[in-house]
Amino acid sequence: MKVSSRGEVDPFIVMDVMEAAARAESQGRTIIHMEVGQPGTPAPAGARKALARAMEEGPLGYTVGLGLPALRARIAGLYREWYGVDLNPDRVVVTPGSSGGFTLAFTSLFDVGARVGIGAPGYPSYKAILKALGLEPVMIRTETQHRLQPVPGDLPQDLDGLLVASPANPSGTMLDRDALAALIGAAEARGAAFISDEIYHGIEYDRKAVSALEIADETYVINSFSKYFSMTGWRVGWMVVPEDHVRRVERLVQNLFICAPHASQIAALAALDCGDELQANLEVYRKNRALMLEGLPKAGFTRIAPPDGAFYVYADVSDLTTDSRAFAAEILEKAGVAVTPGLDFDQDRGAGTLRFSYARSTEDIEEGLARLARFMAAR
Amino acid sequence: MKVSSRGEVDPFIVMDVMEAAARAESQGRTIIHMEVGQPGTPAPAGARKALARAMEEGPLGYTVGLGLPALRARIAGLYREWYGVDLNPDRVVVTPGSSGGFTLAFTSLFDVGARVGIGAPGYPSYKAILKALGLEPVMIRTETQHRLQPVPGDLPQDLDGLLVASPANPSGTMLDRDALAALIGAAEARGAAFISDEIYHGIEYDRKAVSALEIADETYVINSFSKYFSMTGWRVGWMVVPEDHVRRVERLVQNLFICAPHASQIAALAALDCGDELQANLEVYRKNRALMLEGLPKAGFTRIAPPDGAFYVYADVSDLTTDSRAFAAEILEKAGVAVTPGLDFDQDRGAGTLRFSYARSTEDIEEGLARLARFMAAR
Repeated sequence: MKVSSRGEVDPFIVMDVMEAAARAESQGRTIIHMEVGQPGTPAPAGARKALARAMEEGPLGYTVGLGLPALRARIAGLYREWYGVDLNPDRVVVTPGSSGGFTLAFTSLFDVGARVGIGAPGYPSYKAILKALGLEPVMIRTETQHRLQPVPGDLPQDLDGLLVASPANPSGTMLDRDALAALIGAAEARGAAFISDEIYHGIEYDRKAVSALEIADETYVINSFSKYFSMTGWRVGWMVVPEDHVRRVERLVQNLFICAPHASQIAALAALDCGDELQANLEVYRKNRALMLEGLPKAGFTRIAPPDGAFYVYADVSDLTTDSRAFAAEILEKAGVAVTPGLDFDQDRGAGTLRFSYARSTEDIEEGLARLARFMAAR
Repeated sequence: MKVSSRGEVDPFIVMDVMEAAARAESQGRTIIHMEVGQPGTPAPAGARKALARAMEEGPLGYTVGLGLPALRARIAGLYREWYGVDLNPDRVVVTPGSSGGFTLAFTSLFDVGARVGIGAPGYPSYKAILKALGLEPVMIRTETQHRLQPVPGDLPQDLDGLLVASPANPSGTMLDRDALAALIGAAEARGAAFISDEIYHGIEYDRKAVSALEIADETYVINSFSKYFSMTGWRVGWMVVPEDHVRRVERLVQNLFICAPHASQIAALAALDCGDELQANLEVYRKNRALMLEGLPKAGFTRIAPPDGAFYVYADVSDLTTDSRAFAAEILEKAGVAVTPGLDFDQDRGAGTLRFSYARSTEDIEEGLARLARFMAAR
């Protein structure tokens, strides 16, 4: 049976770490998980309660393709609340996670063979989804002096699309308003569609993240209930598209997904009213971040830039190793801390980087940092 | 902002019917819904109970890409129970609905430009998904004397894939073992991958549906919890792939979807133990089917073939209209019954066909048939 070449996707290297961690745990060891990209907290209590009630009130059949109207309206309201932007709820598309958003955006905007720019380091699935859809990922090497975000000077002339994330994964760095506007302008100058991945919005520390919608309407904005709303496994997110793209995206949703999970949409709608619980989660990340920014350099991971948002620290460890994969394996084995080798985010330079997540409990972060310090001292 | 041509998907014509039905209902009319392709029943009580419990026990984060191991094992067990087939649970991939299964199968098997055969009439999203993925849908016109299923003689020589559904939507007809084996053989002879859509398995009346896995291992089998398990809005299904395809499909799931919704996976696992409730649903469909097969001809819809499975009757109404879209609008307006014009399933011949769904309550079916009889008598 023949197979496709576009289905030949690179494995996630972090999977080896996770499997080794699971093996160690099954042998009775306690592992601190700094490799995971998700909160340790559940969906907000109000969200779970709303779903428990809805499940007993009627069948949760298909919703309309664009999502529950009440949810779309409430998401639109978030743009006023968070950014002071008036957003027409018709432009909001509820998606099966941001993953679904990427597939919808890419198929709506790009024909086979189109060139789409993505920053390196960056979320590994961008590249895989583009490739699976017959598109050409154009890796844009970002620089430390730009805090690992692309700048217009980094962009090639021939691009059909540009996808940017702020706060970014793995670095946690943000684009300020001017930097984001410059990239939107550079994309426009090239006739390239601009896609803004805003999945970590809401998880920001010293200043608010800027939405592309504060700057331009002619963009696709992708977001999710996974991170700030602590609902990773629920697979529900949203996308904002230009008004004249709504119908085409609606048809794509209907055909590719039918709809986002109904149960998750109900939980998401209620989660939008759970501000207190979500702010409490955020305070944990804030505390964890402070511990990381103090503890990692003390342990010997000195080449880090303070993240503006998300819950990751991306460390340059090229002074410590030339093989981040082996280094991560060593840290797991000797320190009992699981971390992500940078190779998942940057094929060229990732052998010299690691990503540390601080999404879990403060207790875990304290223990993890203590273990890392002992490990590095003994090394 | 430029858009893609592959994102130009045909609208569902049934959407016009559904919108008109919603308008009529908002004006106080009672509409009988024979247009919908989903059960009126909720997820089984045991499934909802399991989820309510799980939500309070811990966070429902991402599952591993292939799905909860217990769910995969239980699905494998279903193949012994239903078909007497021993299936290695490693070959089971939990998907976000059968929709997710199609995207995974197509990207795993076919490169851009590949030609994939699908029967007409057929599920309209096959074509849209193929097109969105840069593939060429090859419409295979099926004949009434073959009960609207393809036979080897209908197939062109140059095919990269063949997708078949039994029981089929919209006709409800099934392929028996010999007919299915002949199609698998014809695909093999052409070097074409064989994909079997088995989403309506379990909803069958006089004889059991045959799984492609009873005949060959080198196939992709797609199924779902939507229909027999009454969980449409939950967006959870599964796919069985050849053993040496599991790793590539795993990577595709991880990147395209991360995982199927965790909550839905938990509900699905419990639904597998809710046989009594599901059999009770099936008895309702069986009763409804008998009413339809008696009532539709009496009303004047005489050109129907008894469906073997699913919950649809596909009627040739070319003696009554040359415009099924206008006819459906007239039936809605005058009879207060929503039905689906055949154009969604068959662009060439659908102007002369209608699909009637009998997935709802027996009371609704009785009322709908009475309305149709009055309407036709007055016409």
